[in-house]
Amino acid sequence: MEQAPGNFSSPPIGVFDSGLGGLTLVRELTRALPGEPIVYLGDSARVPYGTKSLETVRQFALQCTAFLLQFEPKLIVAACNTASAAAADTLEAFSPVPVVDVIRPGAAAAVTATDGPIGIIGTEATIASAAYERAITELDPTREVIGASCPLLVPIVEEGRDENDPIVLSVLSEYLHDLQRRRLGALILGCTHYPLLAGAIRKLMGPDVALVCSAAAAVQKIQLHLAGLTVPASGETPAEMHCYTTDNPERFARLGRRFGGRPITHVQHVGTDELQAQLA
Amino acid sequence: MEQAPGNFSSPPIGVFDSGLGGLTLVRELTRALPGEPIVYLGDSARVPYGTKSLETVRQFALQCTAFLLQFEPKLIVAACNTASAAAADTLEAFSPVPVVDVIRPGAAAAVTATDGPIGIIGTEATIASAAYERAITELDPTREVIGASCPLLVPIVEEGRDENDPIVLSVLSEYLHDLQRRRLGALILGCTHYPLLAGAIRKLMGPDVALVCSAAAAVQKIQLHLAGLTVPASGETPAEMHCYTTDNPERFARLGRRFGGRPITHVQHVGTDELQAQLA
Repeated sequence: MEQAPGNFSSPPIGVFDSGLGGLTLVRELTRALPGEPIVYLGDSARVPYGTKSLETVRQFALQCTAFLLQFEPKLIVAACNTASAAAADTLEAFSPVPVVDVIRPGAAAAVTATDGPIGIIGTEATIASAAYERAITELDPTREVIGASCPLLVPIVEEGRDENDPIVLSVLSEYLHDLQRRRLGALILGCTHYPLLAGAIRKLMGPDVALVCSAAAAVQKIQLHLAGLTVPASGETPAEMHCYTTDNPERFARLGRRFGGRPITHVQHVGTDELQAQLA
Repeated sequence: MEQAPGNFSSPPIGVFDSGLGGLTLVRELTRALPGEPIVYLGDSARVPYGTKSLETVRQFALQCTAFLLQFEPKLIVAACNTASAAAADTLEAFSPVPVVDVIRPGAAAAVTATDGPIGIIGTEATIASAAYERAITELDPTREVIGASCPLLVPIVEEGRDENDPIVLSVLSEYLHDLQRRRLGALILGCTHYPLLAGAIRKLMGPDVALVCSAAAAVQKIQLHLAGLTVPASGETPAEMHCYTTDNPERFARLGRRFGGRPITHVQHVGTDELQAQLA
């Protein structure tokens, strides 16, 4: 790390993700709370989390949280669905500041959006964890929930394919095939990459299925948290954002543009060895 | 790590890969040299390497090599094309025992197989490194070389799709489209996962294009090395193989079967923090 942490004019919101996907949450966060400074960590050297075991993801998520705590944030956001699924409770117990995950807000938004069955698409690890099912069942024990893992969608988005690409449409048609027959009331986009395919998913699922973006739901929860803590900054100009990546900063800045939000101007490298040292 | 390293009856061959793909090389190695004990490290917690920067991959490859050196191997094999592309020279300088990479043997096999243009398919990082081009040009400065990166093929194979799957065929057709028009004499399968798609690639490229498997070429180089060092073990029964993975061992054993070679019976976990500590 080239620069000492903690040089924000006011306590930032700390956001971490397995890579770039969490920038879709940052985009929503910036729209809702433009004046809040943000420190973002993308663990691009170890991306993706979604094909790995929950115990490994839990370790990585703890390291990311420990790293962000150095910046004395007002709260931490686990923007990655897989990290949220694997580690939400662990991170809450570990962190002295509140941790907002994306699973519980996404589940709550889906339960509010419909009385019908709820579908979830996510990574292999997120679906295997059944974290969304548990969160939905806590709110409504009788609700029917159907999950489908979609392993190729993250690499497809990271390759830069857009949602009209014939390969994207074939892959989506295959993954959504069973869900299309289940008369869903809502479908949770349970991965930060999926909002970039929302148009194609909407076409395949039809107008009667509400698409629930977990990142947007998490941003509403963050707003509530901040309203309880302090007066949210309300400037019109986006406040400062510092990004850290465990892989190449130039690549992060270049590819990160597609995922949106504020211009990505400050990106620094932090080694995975430094992340691990936070917990040692 | 639950067990002390070094408990082999004779010095093993150390093989590392970003994950499971290197087991395709182990399969060839076992056929050629069934009596050689093997210690395999799959860095499944940080897989894939092929979408990451060369400097990050170089660090990971050094850590893997340092870990394998604990077992006092007779030689080390960088089975991962991306690691070979990023770090072959670095690993050779670092290791007290010979390091066999897969790039130079694959390049030499292709130059031998044809006088015509040579195509290469590989990960984003392997193609961006131009390591195959350099290795081919060293052997034949006038040879025409055409590389194509194929980012989705690794996740497609890891998802378990076989080569008759319509999505696999669409993706391959797209990636091979330009190569099909180049009157290639040979095509290098520049990633350990691609031999599992060789049938479909052969159909698309036609019978006049020799498919060169870098893993098989590397095994021939290993045989030459061992013939120079000692009398290779020549038992008919496969010798012991111990596997280590940075992710979940049960998952490694289960998914590893598809990639072949010996039965995978001994798999232990080693943390990425332990790998990093080897170099600290």
